Amino acid sequence: MRTKSPFKLSALDETNRLGEIYRAAALLICEKGYDATSMNDIAEAVGLTKAGIYHHIEGKRDLLFRIMNFGMDELDENVIVPARAIADAESRLRAIVANHVRLITSHITPQGYNPVTIIVEEVAGLTPEHRRKIDQRKRAYVDLIRDTLNQLKKEGKLREVDVTVATFSLLGAILWLSRWYHPDGRLTPEQIVEEISKITLGGLLRPRLAAQR
Amino acid sequence: MRTKSPFKLSALDETNRLGEIYRAAALLICEKGYDATSMNDIAEAVGLTKAGIYHHIEGKRDLLFRIMNFGMDELDENVIVPARAIADAESRLRAIVANHVRLITSHITPQGYNPVTIIVEEVAGLTPEHRRKIDQRKRAYVDLIRDTLNQLKKEGKLREVDVTVATFSLLGAILWLSRWYHPDGRLTPEQIVEEISKITLGGLLRPRLAAQR
Repeated sequence: MRTKSPFKLSALDETNRLGEIYRAAALLICEKGYDATSMNDIAEAVGLTKAGIYHHIEGKRDLLFRIMNFGMDELDENVIVPARAIADAESRLRAIVANHVRLITSHITPQGYNPVTIIVEEVAGLTPEHRRKIDQRKRAYVDLIRDTLNQLKKEGKLREVDVTVATFSLLGAILWLSRWYHPDGRLTPEQIVEEISKITLGGLLRPRLAAQR
Repeated sequence: MRTKSPFKLSALDETNRLGEIYRAAALLICEKGYDATSMNDIAEAVGLTKAGIYHHIEGKRDLLFRIMNFGMDELDENVIVPARAIADAESRLRAIVANHVRLITSHITPQGYNPVTIIVEEVAGLTPEHRRKIDQRKRAYVDLIRDTLNQLKKEGKLREVDVTVATFSLLGAILWLSRWYHPDGRLTPEQIVEEISKITLGGLLRPRLAAQR
Protein backbone atom coordinates (compact mmCIF):
# COMPACT_ATOMS: atom_id res chain seq x y z
CA MET A 1 0.00 0.00 0.00
CA ARG A 2 1.33 3.39 -0.95
CA THR A 3 0.23 6.49 0.95
CA LYS A 4 -0.42 9.49 -1.27
CA SER A 5 1.72 12.53 -0.65
CA PRO A 6 0.36 16.05 -1.19
CA PHE A 7 3.84 17.14 -2.24
CA LYS A 8 5.28 16.78 -5.72
CA LEU A 9 7.51 13.79 -6.19
CA SER A 10 11.20 14.52 -6.41
CA ALA A 11 12.94 13.67 -9.69
CA LEU A 12 14.39 10.50 -8.15
CA ASP A 13 11.03 9.38 -6.73
CA GLU A 14 9.47 10.00 -10.13
CA THR A 15 12.16 7.87 -11.78
CA ASN A 16 11.65 5.06 -9.30
CA ARG A 17 7.88 5.29 -9.69
CA LEU A 18 8.15 5.03 -13.46
CA GLY A 19 10.47 2.03 -13.14
CA GLU A 20 7.93 0.35 -10.88
CA ILE A 21 5.16 1.02 -13.41
CA TYR A 22 7.25 -0.31 -16.32
CA ARG A 23 8.15 -3.48 -14.44
CA ALA A 24 4.54 -4.12 -13.43
CA ALA A 25 3.29 -3.45 -16.96
CA ALA A 26 5.96 -5.74 -18.46
CA LEU A 27 4.96 -8.54 -16.09
CA LEU A 28 1.27 -8.18 -16.95
CA ILE A 29 2.04 -8.16 -20.68
CA CYS A 30 4.19 -11.30 -20.31
CA GLU A 31 1.46 -13.07 -18.36
CA LYS A 32 -1.63 -11.97 -20.30
CA GLY A 33 -0.34 -10.74 -23.65
CA TYR A 34 -0.17 -7.10 -24.81
CA ASP A 35 -3.71 -6.73 -26.09
CA ALA A 36 -5.34 -8.45 -23.12
CA THR A 37 -3.60 -6.01 -20.74
CA SER A 38 -5.46 -2.74 -20.13
CA MET A 39 -4.20 0.53 -18.66
CA ASN A 40 -6.65 -0.22 -15.85
CA ASP A 41 -4.90 -3.54 -15.08
CA ILE A 42 -1.55 -1.75 -14.92
CA ALA A 43 -2.92 1.04 -12.70
CA GLU A 44 -4.37 -1.56 -10.35
CA ALA A 45 -1.10 -3.51 -10.18
CA VAL A 46 0.82 -0.42 -9.01
CA GLY A 47 -1.90 1.01 -6.77
CA LEU A 48 -2.86 4.00 -8.92
CA THR A 49 -6.19 5.17 -10.26
CA LYS A 50 -6.76 5.21 -14.00
CA ALA A 51 -6.30 9.00 -13.93
CA GLY A 52 -3.12 8.49 -11.91
CA ILE A 53 -1.57 6.18 -14.47
CA TYR A 54 -2.33 8.62 -17.30
CA HIS A 55 -0.42 11.24 -15.36
CA HIS A 56 2.69 9.11 -15.97
CA ILE A 57 2.02 7.52 -19.35
CA GLU A 58 0.10 8.88 -22.34
CA GLY A 59 -1.36 5.53 -23.29
CA LYS A 60 -0.76 1.93 -24.18
CA ARG A 61 0.51 2.78 -27.64
CA ASP A 62 3.55 4.49 -26.12
CA LEU A 63 3.98 2.07 -23.24
CA LEU A 64 5.87 -0.73 -25.04
CA PHE A 65 8.43 1.78 -26.34
CA ARG A 66 8.87 3.23 -22.86
CA ILE A 67 9.40 -0.21 -21.32
CA MET A 68 12.00 -1.06 -23.96
CA ASN A 69 13.85 2.22 -23.45
CA PHE A 70 13.74 1.60 -19.71
CA GLY A 71 15.30 -1.84 -20.26
CA MET A 72 17.97 -0.37 -22.52
CA ASP A 73 18.66 2.43 -19.98
CA GLU A 74 19.28 -0.23 -17.33
CA LEU A 75 21.59 -2.09 -19.70
CA ASP A 76 23.46 1.15 -20.46
CA GLU A 77 23.91 2.10 -16.85
CA ASN A 78 24.80 -1.33 -15.45
CA VAL A 79 26.63 -3.01 -18.32
CA ILE A 80 27.63 -0.76 -21.24
CA VAL A 81 28.96 2.32 -19.40
CA PRO A 82 31.08 0.36 -16.88
CA ALA A 83 32.41 -1.87 -19.71
CA ARG A 84 33.46 1.11 -21.86
CA ALA A 85 35.64 2.29 -18.96
CA ILE A 86 37.72 -0.92 -19.07
CA ALA A 87 40.66 -0.80 -21.51
CA ASP A 88 41.72 -4.45 -21.27
CA ALA A 89 39.57 -6.57 -23.59
CA GLU A 90 39.53 -9.72 -21.48
CA SER A 91 38.56 -7.84 -18.30
CA ARG A 92 35.92 -5.96 -20.30
CA LEU A 93 34.40 -9.20 -21.62
CA ARG A 94 34.33 -10.71 -18.11
CA ALA A 95 32.66 -7.53 -16.78
CA ILE A 96 30.06 -7.55 -19.57
CA VAL A 97 29.04 -11.15 -18.84
CA ALA A 98 29.01 -10.72 -15.06
CA ASN A 99 27.14 -7.39 -15.02
CA HIS A 100 24.57 -8.46 -17.59
CA VAL A 101 23.86 -11.70 -15.70
CA ARG A 102 23.55 -9.68 -12.45
CA LEU A 103 21.16 -7.21 -14.10
CA ILE A 104 18.88 -10.02 -15.30
CA THR A 105 18.86 -12.03 -12.08
CA SER A 106 18.35 -8.95 -9.91
CA HIS A 107 14.91 -8.36 -11.42
CA ILE A 108 13.62 -11.93 -11.83
CA THR A 109 10.03 -12.05 -10.51
CA PRO A 110 8.62 -14.85 -8.33
CA GLN A 111 7.06 -16.16 -11.59
CA GLY A 112 10.59 -17.07 -12.63
CA TYR A 113 11.45 -14.60 -15.37
CA ASN A 114 12.58 -11.05 -16.05
CA PRO A 115 9.67 -9.43 -17.88
CA VAL A 116 11.46 -6.23 -18.97
CA THR A 117 14.16 -8.26 -20.72
CA ILE A 118 11.51 -10.31 -22.50
CA ILE A 119 9.43 -7.29 -23.56
CA VAL A 120 12.55 -5.67 -25.07
CA GLU A 121 12.32 -8.34 -27.81
CA GLU A 122 8.63 -7.67 -28.66
CA VAL A 123 9.41 -5.08 -31.32
CA ALA A 124 6.41 -6.02 -33.52
CA GLY A 125 4.16 -3.65 -31.54
CA LEU A 126 6.33 -0.56 -32.16
CA THR A 127 5.95 2.14 -34.80
CA PRO A 128 8.69 1.94 -37.46
CA GLU A 129 10.39 5.02 -36.00
CA HIS A 130 10.41 3.64 -32.44
CA ARG A 131 11.59 0.27 -33.73
CA ARG A 132 14.53 1.97 -35.46
CA LYS A 133 15.49 3.67 -32.21
CA ILE A 134 15.39 0.46 -30.17
CA ASP A 135 17.27 -1.47 -32.86
CA GLN A 136 19.94 1.23 -32.83
CA ARG A 137 20.41 0.91 -29.08
CA LYS A 138 20.64 -2.87 -29.34
CA ARG A 139 23.17 -2.56 -32.16
CA ALA A 140 25.40 -0.41 -29.95
CA TYR A 141 25.55 -3.26 -27.42
CA VAL A 142 26.20 -5.90 -30.09
CA ASP A 143 29.02 -3.70 -31.44
CA LEU A 144 30.56 -3.37 -27.98
CA ILE A 145 30.73 -7.16 -27.63
CA ARG A 146 31.92 -7.66 -31.19
CA ASP A 147 34.66 -5.02 -30.83
CA THR A 148 35.78 -6.64 -27.58
CA LEU A 149 36.01 -10.06 -29.23
CA ASN A 150 37.88 -8.58 -32.21
CA GLN A 151 40.36 -7.00 -29.81
CA LEU A 152 40.85 -10.38 -28.10
CA LYS A 153 41.38 -11.96 -31.51
CA LYS A 154 44.15 -9.48 -32.33
CA GLU A 155 45.77 -10.23 -28.97
CA GLY A 156 45.69 -13.97 -29.80
CA LYS A 157 43.41 -14.67 -26.84
CA LEU A 158 40.33 -15.80 -28.79
CA ARG A 159 39.79 -19.36 -30.01
CA GLU A 160 39.47 -19.91 -33.76
CA VAL A 161 35.81 -18.89 -33.83
CA ASP A 162 33.78 -16.56 -36.01
CA VAL A 163 33.38 -13.29 -34.09
CA THR A 164 29.79 -12.63 -35.21
CA VAL A 165 28.58 -16.12 -34.28
CA ALA A 166 30.48 -15.82 -31.00
CA THR A 167 28.84 -12.45 -30.23
CA PHE A 168 25.29 -13.72 -30.72
CA SER A 169 25.88 -17.09 -29.05
CA LEU A 170 27.14 -15.25 -25.97
CA LEU A 171 24.14 -12.91 -26.05
CA GLY A 172 21.73 -15.83 -26.44
CA ALA A 173 23.21 -17.70 -23.50
CA ILE A 174 22.94 -14.57 -21.29
CA LEU A 175 19.50 -13.38 -22.41
CA TRP A 176 17.94 -16.84 -22.15
CA LEU A 177 18.56 -16.57 -18.42
CA SER A 178 15.60 -14.19 -18.18
CA ARG A 179 13.32 -17.10 -19.15
CA TRP A 180 14.56 -19.91 -16.90
CA TYR A 181 16.29 -18.64 -13.75
CA HIS A 182 14.19 -19.04 -10.61
CA PRO A 183 15.05 -16.79 -7.66
CA ASP A 184 14.17 -19.60 -5.25
CA GLY A 185 16.27 -22.11 -7.15
CA ARG A 186 19.35 -24.02 -6.01
CA LEU A 187 21.92 -21.43 -7.14
CA THR A 188 22.49 -17.87 -5.90
CA PRO A 189 22.79 -15.04 -8.45
CA GLU A 190 26.56 -14.94 -7.88
CA GLN A 191 26.83 -18.68 -8.55
CA ILE A 192 24.93 -18.12 -11.79
CA VAL A 193 27.42 -15.35 -12.70
CA GLU A 194 30.28 -17.77 -12.08
CA GLU A 195 28.74 -20.69 -14.00
CA ILE A 196 27.65 -18.66 -17.04
CA SER A 197 31.07 -16.96 -17.13
CA LYS A 198 32.87 -20.32 -17.05
CA ILE A 199 30.61 -21.82 -19.74
CA THR A 200 30.58 -18.90 -22.17
CA LEU A 201 34.18 -17.75 -21.74
CA GLY A 202 35.36 -21.37 -21.85
CA GLY A 203 33.93 -21.57 -25.36
CA LEU A 204 35.46 -18.29 -26.50
CA LEU A 205 38.85 -17.81 -24.86
CA ARG A 206 41.85 -20.03 -25.52
CA PRO A 207 42.02 -22.81 -22.86
CA ARG A 208 44.91 -21.46 -20.78
CA LEU A 209 43.21 -18.09 -20.36
CA ALA A 210 39.76 -19.45 -19.63
CA ALA A 211 41.22 -21.61 -16.87
CA GLN A 212 42.84 -18.63 -15.11
CA ARG A 213 39.78 -18.04 -13.03
CA MET B 1 -1.20 -19.23 -57.34
CA ARG B 2 -2.60 -22.61 -56.42
CA THR B 3 -5.09 -24.30 -58.72
CA LYS B 4 -7.94 -25.96 -56.89
CA SER B 5 -8.26 -29.70 -57.29
CA PRO B 6 -11.67 -31.36 -57.33
CA PHE B 7 -10.09 -34.31 -55.54
CA LYS B 8 -9.43 -34.57 -51.85
CA LEU B 9 -5.91 -33.72 -50.78
CA SER B 10 -3.77 -36.69 -49.81
CA ALA B 11 -2.67 -36.89 -46.18
CA LEU B 12 0.84 -35.70 -47.14
CA ASP B 13 -0.45 -32.73 -49.14
CA GLU B 14 -2.68 -31.81 -46.24
CA THR B 15 0.29 -31.93 -43.85
CA ASN B 16 2.41 -29.76 -46.15
CA ARG B 17 -0.47 -27.33 -46.62
CA LEU B 18 -0.93 -26.98 -42.87
CA GLY B 19 2.81 -26.42 -42.40
CA GLU B 20 2.69 -23.68 -45.00
CA ILE B 21 -0.26 -22.04 -43.22
CA TYR B 22 1.47 -22.23 -39.81
CA ARG B 23 4.69 -20.71 -41.16
CA ALA B 24 2.84 -17.87 -42.90
CA ALA B 25 0.74 -17.18 -39.80
CA ALA B 26 3.81 -17.21 -37.54
CA LEU B 27 5.57 -14.73 -39.82
CA LEU B 28 2.56 -12.37 -39.84
CA ILE B 29 2.25 -12.58 -36.05
CA CYS B 30 5.97 -11.81 -35.64
CA GLU B 31 5.74 -8.84 -38.00
CA LYS B 32 2.40 -7.34 -36.90
CA GLY B 33 1.72 -8.83 -33.47
CA TYR B 34 -0.91 -11.47 -32.63
CA ASP B 35 -3.91 -9.19 -32.21
CA ALA B 36 -3.21 -7.11 -35.29
CA THR B 37 -3.14 -10.28 -37.43
CA SER B 38 -6.54 -11.43 -38.74
CA MET B 39 -7.57 -14.80 -40.18
CA ASN B 40 -8.14 -12.83 -43.41
CA ASP B 41 -4.49 -11.69 -43.46
CA ILE B 42 -3.35 -15.28 -43.03
CA ALA B 43 -5.72 -16.59 -45.72
CA GLU B 44 -4.43 -13.93 -48.10
CA ALA B 45 -0.79 -14.77 -47.36
CA VAL B 46 -1.31 -18.42 -48.33
CA GLY B 47 -3.68 -17.82 -51.26
CA LEU B 48 -6.86 -19.12 -49.63
CA THR B 49 -10.30 -17.59 -49.20
CA LYS B 50 -11.53 -16.88 -45.69
CA ALA B 51 -13.78 -19.96 -46.00
CA GLY B 52 -10.77 -21.94 -47.19
CA ILE B 53 -8.68 -21.07 -44.14
CA TYR B 54 -11.51 -22.06 -41.79
CA HIS B 55 -11.55 -25.45 -43.50
CA HIS B 56 -8.07 -25.98 -42.01
CA ILE B 57 -8.20 -24.06 -38.73
CA GLU B 58 -11.11 -23.46 -36.39
CA GLY B 59 -10.05 -19.94 -35.48
CA LYS B 60 -7.36 -17.67 -34.17
CA ARG B 61 -7.83 -18.86 -30.62
CA ASP B 62 -6.58 -22.31 -31.58
CA LEU B 63 -3.96 -21.08 -34.04
CA LEU B 64 -1.14 -20.22 -31.63
CA PHE B 65 -1.37 -23.66 -30.01
CA ARG B 66 -1.29 -25.32 -33.42
CA ILE B 67 1.79 -23.33 -34.50
CA MET B 68 3.57 -24.26 -31.27
CA ASN B 69 2.73 -27.95 -31.64
CA PHE B 70 3.91 -27.76 -35.24
CA GLY B 71 7.22 -26.29 -34.07
CA MET B 72 7.57 -28.98 -31.40
CA ASP B 73 6.70 -31.71 -33.97
CA GLU B 74 9.55 -30.45 -36.15
CA LEU B 75 11.90 -30.46 -33.17
CA ASP B 76 10.82 -34.03 -32.30
CA GLU B 77 11.29 -35.34 -35.80
CA ASN B 78 14.56 -33.59 -36.65
CA VAL B 79 16.35 -33.37 -33.30
CA ILE B 80 14.84 -35.42 -30.45
CA VAL B 81 14.06 -38.72 -32.21
CA PRO B 82 17.45 -38.97 -34.01
CA ALA B 83 19.27 -38.02 -30.77
CA ARG B 84 17.50 -40.71 -28.72
CA ALA B 85 18.86 -43.31 -31.15
CA ILE B 86 22.47 -42.38 -30.29
CA ALA B 87 23.88 -44.26 -27.29
CA ASP B 88 27.17 -42.36 -26.95
CA ALA B 89 26.59 -39.15 -24.99
CA GLU B 90 29.19 -37.04 -26.75
CA SER B 91 27.94 -38.02 -30.23
CA ARG B 92 24.38 -37.39 -29.04
CA LEU B 93 25.25 -33.89 -27.81
CA ARG B 94 27.00 -33.06 -31.08
CA ALA B 95 23.97 -34.34 -33.03
CA ILE B 96 21.54 -32.29 -30.91
CA VAL B 97 23.46 -29.06 -31.52
CA ALA B 98 24.00 -29.69 -35.24
CA ASN B 99 20.43 -30.83 -35.99
CA HIS B 100 18.79 -28.06 -33.97
CA VAL B 101 20.94 -25.41 -35.67
CA ARG B 102 20.06 -26.95 -39.08
CA LEU B 103 16.36 -26.96 -38.23
CA ILE B 104 16.43 -23.27 -37.32
CA THR B 105 18.50 -22.07 -40.28
CA SER B 106 16.51 -24.16 -42.78
CA HIS B 107 13.39 -22.08 -42.13
CA ILE B 108 14.84 -18.59 -41.70
CA THR B 109 12.74 -16.17 -43.77
CA PRO B 110 14.17 -13.37 -45.96
CA GLN B 111 13.24 -11.07 -43.03
CA GLY B 112 16.08 -12.75 -41.15
CA TYR B 113 14.39 -14.87 -38.51
CA ASN B 114 12.58 -18.14 -37.94
CA PRO B 115 9.04 -17.14 -36.94
CA VAL B 116 7.85 -20.58 -35.76
CA THR B 117 10.74 -20.82 -33.29
CA ILE B 118 9.90 -17.35 -31.96
CA ILE B 119 6.15 -18.02 -31.67
CA VAL B 120 6.87 -21.19 -29.66
CA GLU B 121 7.92 -18.85 -26.81
CA GLU B 122 4.71 -16.74 -26.87
CA VAL B 123 2.89 -18.90 -24.34
CA ALA B 124 0.96 -15.99 -22.79
CA GLY B 125 -1.77 -16.34 -25.45
CA LEU B 126 -2.53 -19.99 -24.61
CA THR B 127 -5.23 -21.46 -22.40
CA PRO B 128 -3.77 -22.95 -19.18
CA GLU B 129 -4.37 -26.48 -20.50
CA HIS B 130 -2.63 -25.79 -23.81
CA ARG B 131 0.20 -24.08 -22.01
CA ARG B 132 0.71 -27.14 -19.82
CA LYS B 133 0.93 -29.34 -22.92
CA ILE B 134 3.51 -27.13 -24.63
CA ASP B 135 5.54 -26.76 -21.43
CA GLN B 136 5.55 -30.55 -21.09
CA ARG B 137 6.92 -31.00 -24.61
CA LYS B 138 9.62 -28.38 -23.95
CA ARG B 139 10.54 -30.07 -20.70
CA ALA B 140 11.11 -33.37 -22.53
CA TYR B 141 13.73 -31.62 -24.67
CA VAL B 142 15.39 -29.91 -21.71
CA ASP B 143 15.54 -33.32 -19.97
CA LEU B 144 17.16 -34.93 -23.01
CA ILE B 145 19.96 -32.32 -22.98
CA ARG B 146 20.34 -32.46 -19.20
CA ASP B 147 20.51 -36.29 -19.19
CA THR B 148 23.12 -36.18 -21.94
CA LEU B 149 25.26 -33.70 -19.98
CA ASN B 150 24.87 -35.78 -16.81
CA GLN B 151 26.06 -38.84 -18.73
CA LEU B 152 29.09 -36.87 -19.98
CA LYS B 153 29.78 -35.78 -16.41
CA LYS B 154 29.82 -39.42 -15.23
CA GLU B 155 32.19 -40.27 -18.06
CA GLY B 156 34.51 -37.44 -16.94
CA LYS B 157 34.08 -35.63 -20.25
CA LEU B 158 32.29 -32.54 -18.93
CA ARG B 159 34.08 -29.48 -17.56
CA GLU B 160 33.41 -28.52 -13.94
CA VAL B 161 30.14 -26.76 -14.76
CA ASP B 162 26.65 -26.86 -13.31
CA VAL B 163 24.56 -29.12 -15.55
CA THR B 164 21.37 -27.05 -15.33
CA VAL B 165 23.12 -23.77 -16.18
CA ALA B 166 24.96 -25.58 -18.97
CA THR B 167 21.70 -26.96 -20.38
CA PHE B 168 19.99 -23.58 -20.58
CA SER B 169 23.08 -21.70 -21.78
CA LEU B 170 23.37 -24.16 -24.65
CA LEU B 171 19.67 -23.80 -25.45
CA GLY B 172 19.90 -20.00 -25.34
CA ALA B 173 22.86 -19.92 -27.72
CA ILE B 174 21.02 -22.19 -30.19
CA LEU B 175 17.56 -20.61 -29.96
CA TRP B 176 18.92 -17.06 -30.27
CA LEU B 177 19.99 -18.01 -33.79
CA SER B 178 16.36 -17.73 -34.89
CA ARG B 179 16.56 -13.99 -34.21
CA TRP B 180 19.83 -13.01 -35.84
CA TYR B 181 20.88 -15.39 -38.62
CA HIS B 182 20.38 -13.94 -42.13
CA PRO B 183 20.10 -16.43 -44.99
CA ASP B 184 21.95 -14.02 -47.30
CA GLY B 185 24.70 -13.44 -44.75
CA ARG B 186 28.38 -14.30 -45.00
CA LEU B 187 28.14 -17.81 -43.53
CA THR B 188 26.39 -20.89 -44.93
CA PRO B 189 24.10 -22.92 -42.65
CA GLU B 190 26.79 -25.63 -42.37
CA GLN B 191 29.38 -23.03 -41.33
CA ILE B 192 26.95 -21.86 -38.67
CA VAL B 193 26.58 -25.47 -37.48
CA GLU B 194 30.36 -25.74 -37.22
CA GLU B 195 30.86 -22.40 -35.43
CA ILE B 196 28.04 -22.85 -32.91
CA SER B 197 29.23 -26.41 -32.20
CA LYS B 198 32.79 -25.19 -31.60
CA ILE B 199 31.67 -22.34 -29.34
CA THR B 200 29.09 -24.20 -27.25
CA LEU B 201 30.92 -27.55 -26.98
CA GLY B 202 34.18 -25.71 -26.29
CA GLY B 203 32.55 -24.28 -23.19
CA LEU B 204 31.12 -27.60 -22.01
CA LEU B 205 33.51 -30.42 -22.89
CA ARG B 206 36.97 -30.82 -21.39
CA PRO B 207 39.57 -29.16 -23.68
CA ARG B 208 41.13 -32.32 -25.15
CA LEU B 209 37.72 -33.61 -26.23
CA ALA B 210 36.44 -30.32 -27.59
CA ALA B 211 39.57 -30.03 -29.77
CA GLN B 212 39.00 -33.44 -31.37
CA ARG B 213 36.91 -31.97 -34.16
